[in-house]
Amino acid sequence: MSEQDREREEFQRVARRARAAGAELAPLPRAAKDAALHAIADALVAAAPEIVKANGTDVERARESGTSEYMIDRLSLSADRIAAIAEAVRNVAALPDPVGETVRGSVLPNGLDLRQIRVPLGVVGIIYEGRPNVTVDAAALCLKSGNAAMLRGSSSAYESNTVLVGVMQNALEATDVPRDAVQLVPGTSRESVGHLMRARGLVDVLIPRGGASLINSVVEGSTVPVIETGVGNCSVYVDDAADVGMAVDILVNAKTQRPSVCNAAETFLVHAGIADAFLPRALEALRAKGVTVHGDDRVRSYGEDVVPATEDDWRAEYLSMDIAARVVDSLEDAVAHIRAYGSDHTEAIVTTSQPAARRFVALVDSAAVMVNASTRFTDGEEFGFGAEIGISTQKLHARGPMALPELTSTKYVVTGEGHLRG
Amino acid sequence: MSEQDREREEFQRVARRARAAGAELAPLPRAAKDAALHAIADALVAAAPEIVKANGTDVERARESGTSEYMIDRLSLSADRIAAIAEAVRNVAALPDPVGETVRGSVLPNGLDLRQIRVPLGVVGIIYEGRPNVTVDAAALCLKSGNAAMLRGSSSAYESNTVLVGVMQNALEATDVPRDAVQLVPGTSRESVGHLMRARGLVDVLIPRGGASLINSVVEGSTVPVIETGVGNCSVYVDDAADVGMAVDILVNAKTQRPSVCNAAETFLVHAGIADAFLPRALEALRAKGVTVHGDDRVRSYGEDVVPATEDDWRAEYLSMDIAARVVDSLEDAVAHIRAYGSDHTEAIVTTSQPAARRFVALVDSAAVMVNASTRFTDGEEFGFGAEIGISTQKLHARGPMALPELTSTKYVVTGEGHLRG
Repeated sequence: MSEQDREREEFQRVARRARAAGAELAPLPRAAKDAALHAIADALVAAAPEIVKANGTDVERARESGTSEYMIDRLSLSADRIAAIAEAVRNVAALPDPVGETVRGSVLPNGLDLRQIRVPLGVVGIIYEGRPNVTVDAAALCLKSGNAAMLRGSSSAYESNTVLVGVMQNALEATDVPRDAVQLVPGTSRESVGHLMRARGLVDVLIPRGGASLINSVVEGSTVPVIETGVGNCSVYVDDAADVGMAVDILVNAKTQRPSVCNAAETFLVHAGIADAFLPRALEALRAKGVTVHGDDRVRSYGEDVVPATEDDWRAEYLSMDIAARVVDSLEDAVAHIRAYGSDHTEAIVTTSQPAARRFVALVDSAAVMVNASTRFTDGEEFGFGAEIGISTQKLHARGPMALPELTSTKYVVTGEGHLRG
Repeated sequence: MSEQDREREEFQRVARRARAAGAELAPLPRAAKDAALHAIADALVAAAPEIVKANGTDVERARESGTSEYMIDRLSLSADRIAAIAEAVRNVAALPDPVGETVRGSVLPNGLDLRQIRVPLGVVGIIYEGRPNVTVDAAALCLKSGNAAMLRGSSSAYESNTVLVGVMQNALEATDVPRDAVQLVPGTSRESVGHLMRARGLVDVLIPRGGASLINSVVEGSTVPVIETGVGNCSVYVDDAADVGMAVDILVNAKTQRPSVCNAAETFLVHAGIADAFLPRALEALRAKGVTVHGDDRVRSYGEDVVPATEDDWRAEYLSMDIAARVVDSLEDAVAHIRAYGSDHTEAIVTTSQPAARRFVALVDSAAVMVNASTRFTDGEEFGFGAEIGISTQKLHARGPMALPELTSTKYVVTGEGHLRG
């Protein structure tokens, strides 16, 4: 048997174990799942030296291959970070259990009792990058929502992830949750991701978390249903009826409060009627924070340091201290720009005009639309969901921050007393 | 330019028009959409002679190619049938508008006002078989839920569908809904379906309606998110605590009331403890209705006319007067059979035992689970939804009968007064 065939067989074995474990896990009551999460948290803290050691191997290999210090930092685990990861698991245990919730219910005219209740999805596959804390976060969210997890992190974190999953599985031994409910996809090859993407019938949904190219390759190659997450080319539109001070503050916050994340602003659009009042102050404030503005000709006429914007700038998810800027002649032109170039993640309008706010909300087709608030608020924690597995930028199943309810499906339960269809 | 390239370009043009029309349609209020639906209904009735004539061409071609009378009947339109189709459109107009509904809402601790509201999906692609009424039904449901429709029916109904879509588009001219909101995918070739399946970015969701092979080919080949529908290998489990008379009635109703549809029963499983009481009566009742039973050895010992069941019978969606039958030793064995062979559509338990009912509901992972009721009730009309676009057998986005709310996505609207993230 070739190495590839061996890897595929091994994948199938692991996925079938996850599926069987998911079926056992699905009907467990909240108390059993919470106890398992606390067991995992305790075990992670106890195994910190072992985890740090495995992580050291990954970090060393990453250093040798010339990985940037920024990426190394994301990859690195310490006893403190492991304690924080364990604490996050305990926080998930404290969240309400979505499973069993009645979403709608009624008694039909013929007396049939109809209920739609939340049930787990089954087996959830997560494909992610080099942050090993995602291994534990994702496993905890899946487990709490009654799902088995098939985890496929970056090969750069394989040693760390192997130990983390082993620690979680061993912790589950003493609980009612089967140890096979948390699985690492075996292998680090490109093909091992392919097995996961084509595991229709074994895996119920795939959630890729990462950059646009990762997400595109999963969407293109997958036969398992995919929830797209996280690419954010977010815009702030400053209406001609904006409070200029508020608009400057929101723009600076949206761009600079944490530029490396998907809900940071990457573009701002200014109504021509307020450009004279807004742009000088905005450019000065951005300059003071070290932001490079890539503007159209009209924006450039307000600042010598504004770099000429190209078509690529309108599409860019910079994730850096850069922002694209354009003057528009109307709210409708702003919406047209967003439709043409945006990623449908989060757009904000700053305005004191109620009709303008209402129109922007109606016309902008994004997962979140902010009125007089920073784009940075699109976040499961900020929305009060307690945790998030990602931010969906697609329209099916879940849109915007995804928390525990988004990791469930539903089932109709229909109860009669011998009802026949006539 | 090759014929293929021309067809692809034509598809892209049509899809872009649908997309633009969808953006115009999305924010329209209910009254505008209902007026458009009534205009369509009126126009269909007025154009009945023209529609019947085009349909005659399709029917003649189908006859010449030796199509069965059953399929010819599904394909055929008459003035009466067109009147019924128009009436169904008026019924859709009478249903509540899902768009704009607040799904959840709260004021966050920092004072931000958070609302999750229903919004249209955008452009919905429907791939279906030879029934031209689906062309109008699907268009009406899409339009009412604020979506543009890209319709791809069977090539056998292409003349009928072309006229039907033309009549609907012309009717929209006099309304606020853009005529391009209803589109037929151009062409009848296999490739024309492929263009639709790969129209990611132009089409937001694909709903294939038809047999297993159609649905599989769409799932395998599509880069647009797909909602799987309609394959139903439904089971009735007769518990040892069942009322025998009720169990016989439910089984006969589930199998024979309309055998050609997806919610008809295709298998029954009998607890060994009630086989002596149940099977002789059940086999007699099925025999009286002309049903052929494909049973395991234990079932066959109760009736000489029971045909031996093979592995294929457990998987079969007969859609005919056939049913597979097995004696099981426990409720758990029935669940294991359903997990191994079922299509996760609808399963029923007949029992007077509350614990058995509860356990079956918890363990069976199907879109609908019936307790003491016929599987035939899994249906949008029966559930009181007023209409259905299909029955989803997948777990993402929608599960079970899909009606207007299932043709929507959501969007978060967040309103502040200059809120910044700290």
